[in-house]
Amino acid sequence: MALANRDLVTIDDMSNGEIEALFSLADDMSASMGQQFGLCRGKVLASLFFEPSTRTRLSFEAAMHRLGGGVISAFDAGATSLAKGETIADMARVVGSYADIIVIRHPWEGAARVVADYAGVPVINAGDGGHEHPTQTLCDLYTLKKEKQTLKGLKIALWGDLKYGRTVHSLACALARFGATILFRPGPGLELPEHVVRKLTTEYGGELRRYESPGQQEEGQLLPLDAMYVTPSSPHQLAMMPDVSFQVELKTGVDALYVTRLQKERLAATDKPSYPVVNKKLLKGKEYERTLVMHPLPRVDELAQEMDGDPRSMYFKQAERGVPVRMALMALLLGVREAGQVGEGAGSRKPAYPPYRHDSGLRCPNQRCVSVQESETKYLKPEFLVVALEPLTLRCAYCEHDFHPGYVASTEWHEGRTDTRIYHRASSQWARKIKPENLLVFASEKEAEARGFKPDHLIGAAYRQVDQD
Amino acid sequence: MALANRDLVTIDDMSNGEIEALFSLADDMSASMGQQFGLCRGKVLASLFFEPSTRTRLSFEAAMHRLGGGVISAFDAGATSLAKGETIADMARVVGSYADIIVIRHPWEGAARVVADYAGVPVINAGDGGHEHPTQTLCDLYTLKKEKQTLKGLKIALWGDLKYGRTVHSLACALARFGATILFRPGPGLELPEHVVRKLTTEYGGELRRYESPGQQEEGQLLPLDAMYVTPSSPHQLAMMPDVSFQVELKTGVDALYVTRLQKERLAATDKPSYPVVNKKLLKGKEYERTLVMHPLPRVDELAQEMDGDPRSMYFKQAERGVPVRMALMALLLGVREAGQVGEGAGSRKPAYPPYRHDSGLRCPNQRCVSVQESETKYLKPEFLVVALEPLTLRCAYCEHDFHPGYVASTEWHEGRTDTRIYHRASSQWARKIKPENLLVFASEKEAEARGFKPDHLIGAAYRQVDQD
Amino acid sequence: MALANRDLVTIDDMSNGEIEALFSLADDMSASMGQQFGLCRGKVLASLFFEPSTRTRLSFEAAMHRLGGGVISAFDAGATSLAKGETIADMARVVGSYADIIVIRHPWEGAARVVADYAGVPVINAGDGGHEHPTQTLCDLYTLKKEKQTLKGLKIALWGDLKYGRTVHSLACALARFGATILFRPGPGLELPEHVVRKLTTEYGGELRRYESPGQQEEGQLLPLDAMYVTPSSPHQLAMMPDVSFQVELKTGVDALYVTRLQKERLAATDKPSYPVVNKKLLKGKEYERTLVMHPLPRVDELAQEMDGDPRSMYFKQAERGVPVRMALMALLLGVREAGQVGEGAGSRKPAYPPYRHDSGLRCPNQRCVSVQESETKYLKPEFLVVALEPLTLRCAYCEHDFHPGYVASTEWHEGRTDTRIYHRASSQWARKIKPENLLVFASEKEAEARGFKPDHLIGAAYRQVDQD
Repeated sequence: MALANRDLVTIDDMSNGEIEALFSLADDMSASMGQQFGLCRGKVLASLFFEPSTRTRLSFEAAMHRLGGGVISAFDAGATSLAKGETIADMARVVGSYADIIVIRHPWEGAARVVADYAGVPVINAGDGGHEHPTQTLCDLYTLKKEKQTLKGLKIALWGDLKYGRTVHSLACALARFGATILFRPGPGLELPEHVVRKLTTEYGGELRRYESPGQQEEGQLLPLDAMYVTPSSPHQLAMMPDVSFQVELKTGVDALYVTRLQKERLAATDKPSYPVVNKKLLKGKEYERTLVMHPLPRVDELAQEMDGDPRSMYFKQAERGVPVRMALMALLLGVREAGQVGEGAGSRKPAYPPYRHDSGLRCPNQRCVSVQESETKYLKPEFLVVALEPLTLRCAYCEHDFHPGYVASTEWHEGRTDTRIYHRASSQWARKIKPENLLVFASEKEAEARGFKPDHLIGAAYRQVDQD
Repeated sequence: MALANRDLVTIDDMSNGEIEALFSLADDMSASMGQQFGLCRGKVLASLFFEPSTRTRLSFEAAMHRLGGGVISAFDAGATSLAKGETIADMARVVGSYADIIVIRHPWEGAARVVADYAGVPVINAGDGGHEHPTQTLCDLYTLKKEKQTLKGLKIALWGDLKYGRTVHSLACALARFGATILFRPGPGLELPEHVVRKLTTEYGGELRRYESPGQQEEGQLLPLDAMYVTPSSPHQLAMMPDVSFQVELKTGVDALYVTRLQKERLAATDKPSYPVVNKKLLKGKEYERTLVMHPLPRVDELAQEMDGDPRSMYFKQAERGVPVRMALMALLLGVREAGQVGEGAGSRKPAYPPYRHDSGLRCPNQRCVSVQESETKYLKPEFLVVALEPLTLRCAYCEHDFHPGYVASTEWHEGRTDTRIYHRASSQWARKIKPENLLVFASEKEAEARGFKPDHLIGAAYRQVDQD
Repeated sequence: MALANRDLVTIDDMSNGEIEALFSLADDMSASMGQQFGLCRGKVLASLFFEPSTRTRLSFEAAMHRLGGGVISAFDAGATSLAKGETIADMARVVGSYADIIVIRHPWEGAARVVADYAGVPVINAGDGGHEHPTQTLCDLYTLKKEKQTLKGLKIALWGDLKYGRTVHSLACALARFGATILFRPGPGLELPEHVVRKLTTEYGGELRRYESPGQQEEGQLLPLDAMYVTPSSPHQLAMMPDVSFQVELKTGVDALYVTRLQKERLAATDKPSYPVVNKKLLKGKEYERTLVMHPLPRVDELAQEMDGDPRSMYFKQAERGVPVRMALMALLLGVREAGQVGEGAGSRKPAYPPYRHDSGLRCPNQRCVSVQESETKYLKPEFLVVALEPLTLRCAYCEHDFHPGYVASTEWHEGRTDTRIYHRASSQWARKIKPENLLVFASEKEAEARGFKPDHLIGAAYRQVDQD
């Protein structure tokens, strides 16, 4: 289970066993924080923050100092000039030749993957746009594990902005992997995006139930009827419960309530008063006596100050534990400590989707993806995985954005007609007949035709229809 | 005399004996600067500068490196983002869980006190608005002590901007504590504020004399007749001298001339030429042969470059000695070194004024006080001390701003009339009859009435008067 | 050959032997990078970047961490505030009292010299405007030395922006010193400035040949006919070759091609397509099989990404080797390592030009020179060297800018007429008769006359001429 010389770009780069081994080392670090300064003597961390995140930066830098290493740091204006007029790959190669390990935050989604590909030293993603922030997830899981001894079977409610928060998406997937049950309680209009729901159920073995409330939400109630509910599909025990048991089960309480920042500007004006603040009143029921209150910080108003002294409040402990977790992570990636053998095997938890093999001019449609930035297209070859055929779904290998290309063709000019190149709607029956290894996809008719393909008769008919109108 | 785990928010947080013990340790640090790197191995300093002050920041960071510790640093733009949308208390708790000791500079007066209250680790104030900058004062005192062997009985002239300079206010109070005699020589319109004068005389045992000159200042003279003069009140020796002896005494010279920056924009255009620059000509008299020239730096034009090579010039030594002084301070607060027993007892030198006990809606009137900032009012309870009754003077516990509330009432509804709540002018005879523990104060009539109080007949008569006009 | 306590402001501050000794120590550092952390324990580097240069800054800071020392760092906004309202000399003195060694980048040319003069600790110039950046040159030379074993006799082509790039000016001079042959291949309008050409030939023993092409450049050719060519004048072997042998010699290839950034905004729109990008096609000839491709980075489009994997490409190695080179340099300047005896003697390689001794109100005409900045004129005395008499050429001692003052006079009121003070045109025959030690120079007639001098009869005649028109 060697983590040495590996990268941590997404939480799925580590197996459950590796994560548990990391937590065990974090316990050691925590127990003798002041005695670790010999571990990384002579080592150098490069801390590159191309977006403000002082808290995360300071946590990593403190962790490296605790390990006795040095830190070279670029942030804000300084970081901007680092990248001026040069590619992320060039920057990664140069800084990788100065330092033994790199931590990077960057606004472009997938940027940390590119840095990892070129740096030649271990790279830790400290946030790449809306994509991933895996060490935050590790800190969250570590706190849950420490307080509840296990992650399996925990019941965790995620609360607040479930739409834009990458923290909560990563945490949900990680909780599903460890067999926790998750209840989603979004702010109005801030529901979990469909692609995360799909991931949870198709990739992490979750079963989904959605409870639609017939009327209005009851104000100030922890979990209303229209919550979403993901249980681990194995064992199927919980999932087989009839709907009516939901409220019953809720009465047994939740193990943790994970609150996220509600950015006021994202709530409609009328919704503001209706969304309950997490405070002592909300959690006064006997069923919440042992409910941990968690938050990635910084908070605004969604979490009352009066909770600070409450023994259930974990948010400052989450921050504090970020240091030993990051010490353990860097010690493992640098190979100065070995991870003990814990649980299941080593390596990535990423599902093995088939790659999309052909260059049909396809670009990732995510405008914040590193692979479509002008400076990076000089050297980055777009890469995609085929994650589903119905509906046809491709995933960008950089930013992991899922999308549904509209048109397809085959490299085998199917049905024996090799003399013509025909393209079809991705939703058509023809599309389904194409073998994955032969698949060509196009974002638009224009793109397909620019590549020398002609529409099939259904698309053609629609054309003619338009012409006659 | 354990300084371990204490904070240094104002210079009054340390007793004279503790300051002397610190200086003794600074001597050790200075003598073997290159051998101290084992003291703080594995320790981490958080250096948080929410306002530019590169010089002070670098001095602290160099001091921690000399002690062998690590530094995590946030400043300027980075520091701004640290606090974005979160309270100082939250920031303090989080950074306090990363680091072993915090140094903070912040534009809000009293902010360092809040950080100290919440961080859970020792906190050093590196400047909080116009309030305090105690390590600058320590460096100034240390230089005086080293050069003159004692502080007691020294005669120090403070020169320049005595109005806005917090450096000079703190130094004046500290000099008074150590029994020095202080001569104030302000730039035109830059006189020492009354509240500092009051503090010097009421809290630090100074006796004040003010010398009004009948005519114009004599140009280029070190101390004109309208200087102010504070002597230690015990022994009364100096203070008992008749006025006429002032000029005579001046002829014996001053031990140090402490020059501060004269910001041009604060001088009226016509005053500029009349204010003498400190140069060799000014100090050519035999009585200034042993006068130290001090300055907190950076200087502008108030101190001539030609003084740089003069053996009396101490300003670069002041800066240099900042490193061993800060090394000694951090070593003591971190508990890695003990302070030897020197002079009088341990602990704060703050006068024990009675607290103002009641919540009458009073807010600190200082707009730069941390306690009135919107983000901080969520959790900070205003706190005040009653420092004088005539005139009624309250001091904010955060920014230490003194103010005179206009109206008072008693919680005992005095004169037996418990059925009505009456408020009075703070200057009225009724006000003086209220016992401190029963005191309620209001900033305005409106505030008193909002709290359900009615005016006494004097205020009421004034009302009626207004109505009739 | 003690380098301890010396400064590195220009590459000429080190002799060839010292540079070779430095390279030998860099080899040691490189071979045991992870074992050097005991060398600078307890030492502090101040890293002051008053201009963005994250890459250089990180390289220095990484080097100091590898040596086990601490780093205090000011950059961008922070650095700006450091200097606000104070002189560079004051800043240097203060920071020099905090740190053991200073690295400085500053936009004013000659600023590093001023810092070195006042800091009291070793100072390394990390770039002062368009003047010098000596450690970049050291990294370039080190890479050439490591790859080709020697510098003497190498044939190096400098390519791209030869006009504005200080990197390339310093490198050219250093290559000339070590006896390399240099071929210049400028972008259109980006030719090597005359003063660099003059320096190469007069100070570094180079012989110059210029090859003017009769027609258009041949596109995509590495070296066109109008290249410039500098050979070491001793031995004269190469220089004696007839012109026609140039193309023949080119066919033997170049040892290295040093590419610099072509800033698009400096190329005329029509020139862009005609300037060849360095790529595999350009270097496909057999004569370039062993040609190193070098670049100071960051690159833009002048150097194709496809070269990255090519074994001839050295640019990432140049960056990587910056760390051991800077480790060796700082270890030597701090005196924690001794340089072995290598090659010729110690000390500066600067030519010993006579100083210009008199104050005739002359100012350096370079507007970016530190000596003419308002804040610095308070204490900096202009200093010049007389580098040539025909044409009269003075060099600023700070920014090393060469210029030709228009007018001269003698302190000896020549020709026996001591009763009048006469000034002459610098190009006149009278001018040549003035002994260097008596020379007075003026930028203009106005300046000469303001100093009380009168025009000689030639200048006077021109006056009268003007009056009559």
